[in-house]
Amino acid sequence: MVTFFPSLPTPLDFQAFDTRLKDYRGHIAPLLAQAIPLGEPRKYLYDLVQAQLDRGGKGIRPAICLATCSAFGGDPARALPSAAALELLHNAFLVHDDVEDASEYRRGKPTLHREYGTPLAVNTGDAMNAISARLLKQNFTLLGPQLGVRVLDEFDHMSTETIEGQAMELGWIRDNDCNTSEQDYLRMVLKKTSWYSFIHPMRIGALVAQPGRDDLDVFNRFGYFLGTAFQIQDDVLNLTGDRGKYGKEIGGDLLEGKRTLILAHLFRQVAPLEKQRLAGFLGKPRAQRLPRELAWVYELLQKYGSIDYARTAARDFADGARRELGTAYAGATPGADLDFISSLLDYMVNREA
Amino acid sequence: MVTFFPSLPTPLDFQAFDTRLKDYRGHIAPLLAQAIPLGEPRKYLYDLVQAQLDRGGKGIRPAICLATCSAFGGDPARALPSAAALELLHNAFLVHDDVEDASEYRRGKPTLHREYGTPLAVNTGDAMNAISARLLKQNFTLLGPQLGVRVLDEFDHMSTETIEGQAMELGWIRDNDCNTSEQDYLRMVLKKTSWYSFIHPMRIGALVAQPGRDDLDVFNRFGYFLGTAFQIQDDVLNLTGDRGKYGKEIGGDLLEGKRTLILAHLFRQVAPLEKQRLAGFLGKPRAQRLPRELAWVYELLQKYGSIDYARTAARDFADGARRELGTAYAGATPGADLDFISSLLDYMVNREA
Repeated sequence: MVTFFPSLPTPLDFQAFDTRLKDYRGHIAPLLAQAIPLGEPRKYLYDLVQAQLDRGGKGIRPAICLATCSAFGGDPARALPSAAALELLHNAFLVHDDVEDASEYRRGKPTLHREYGTPLAVNTGDAMNAISARLLKQNFTLLGPQLGVRVLDEFDHMSTETIEGQAMELGWIRDNDCNTSEQDYLRMVLKKTSWYSFIHPMRIGALVAQPGRDDLDVFNRFGYFLGTAFQIQDDVLNLTGDRGKYGKEIGGDLLEGKRTLILAHLFRQVAPLEKQRLAGFLGKPRAQRLPRELAWVYELLQKYGSIDYARTAARDFADGARRELGTAYAGATPGADLDFISSLLDYMVNREA
Repeated sequence: MVTFFPSLPTPLDFQAFDTRLKDYRGHIAPLLAQAIPLGEPRKYLYDLVQAQLDRGGKGIRPAICLATCSAFGGDPARALPSAAALELLHNAFLVHDDVEDASEYRRGKPTLHREYGTPLAVNTGDAMNAISARLLKQNFTLLGPQLGVRVLDEFDHMSTETIEGQAMELGWIRDNDCNTSEQDYLRMVLKKTSWYSFIHPMRIGALVAQPGRDDLDVFNRFGYFLGTAFQIQDDVLNLTGDRGKYGKEIGGDLLEGKRTLILAHLFRQVAPLEKQRLAGFLGKPRAQRLPRELAWVYELLQKYGSIDYARTAARDFADGARRELGTAYAGATPGADLDFISSLLDYMVNREA
């Protein structure tokens, strides 16, 4: 398909993007299916792993990994275990995140811990983490020991950053920190989103394609901008999206007390008395947050233009990513894979789900 | 120290055992200290990792690994990253187990999730798991790639079995299964205790000492018997122990609804009406279990001799282990390390904590 207006996405653009995404998903699907043990215990463990994977998910992380590998002339088959491991680790994080955030919905269904109870859900997250590590062992025969260890290094850094970012977010909520700044937010998002969702999938894809590379940091800025655009857009969708498309409860972030760019902007803008009331709302247990209080916070966000501010920021980060694309993917071969990476930019700020 | 009565332990025996245990702990302490990142976020993450490790713990798993490595003529320094990784993974499991079981005390202190909240505790368990995996990467330079991967294989099997066993235990509690048999219990204990606490620490120690070994299964029976003796004794202590020494709440397993050998015996023995009432007790939310009901369950255990039955079973398993010791450690060099392994047997059924 010829893309006439690469910077002005049309529904048709997303259709091509979605088709391509589905292709990449199709490549890792057999590995994911094989990775789940066939034995017992089924109804207390592996059925839950399957249930989490069956909820779908777009598979953006493995897609980025495979696309990058191909774009740099690598055989994507050599990146498959790493790509599948990314998807499993992502789902392990999601299951634990949903417990930690007390989230109610994920991909349009009740979260795993609501369906099966918190104890089995926490344990299922651990299982998905272990299965992800098992997949990475395949790299030692597929790619040789040296490259196998380098991929482990990438996963190690990825997990560490994600867990650190998650700790920041959870800590601010626990302590009802109402001075989280935009800088704090950006640091948290780099840690808890950008590394594992964008930067490392690219780095790993490029590494498998060109094992001699020692310039993988070239992806960091691009992935940081892209990841931040993605996360801010996610925060906006959480407040304003269509529940049917978005798959989580609308306003859920506010009920969970999440420190978003939107909230950081509001903290900086509101009058002292409003801030006091806002802190009171955010400091209450989730179950005690009333619908009319939530409506009041929405009004406040409207009054200070915090959501529009975030929309603009998401576009700015996407523009920043657009400027970095050429640097990150210098030397990549033009074609469907590179187009996919390029269309990620538009997708990030125009998506509805 | 000369042990006059190896099969009749005296306080002096345990003193030698404890001293030796402390020695092994001293060897991995620097690695554990170095393994915790120095950076942020401290108060929401790495302080919690430190707090969990500071609670102590006997360090039995790394000790078994180091002792086995030495006993088979290996340099224990080559087993240090694996031994430290065992301790970190053990603590990662404990943190998540305590969340899953809603346990209140661990090693005489409130559990991590009670002190810092469930969200940060779940995330801290993930961090300890990641740090454990990072330590195992050291094996690739220390032991070479081939042995490095074999140790990963051992850890992989270990995590899988542990998580599967945990799923069984949690599932039975969630569904209030009152037909858990002694066979079910033994299968669960093999999975959730014996592999990671005994069998794999031995296998890994032996593997590092003698990389050419392909008979590591020789440790499986010994470790299974030892692990089962350990777990049954732990179940007994949980009901009858001294809170000050034991470090957990006495009767906590009953409040958590854990399916122990004691309970499996009781399920098989009780009269139908008693079983109905017992099922009612076990099926209630923890907070609704009244002290007088707990006292009634104790009476029932007394009436049917279930605790004595478990004590006998623990001794039987320890005896079984004693018979297997020579097979498992055939070819090992006599000395302090082998003595330590041998004294584990007595320690398992005579310990008070």
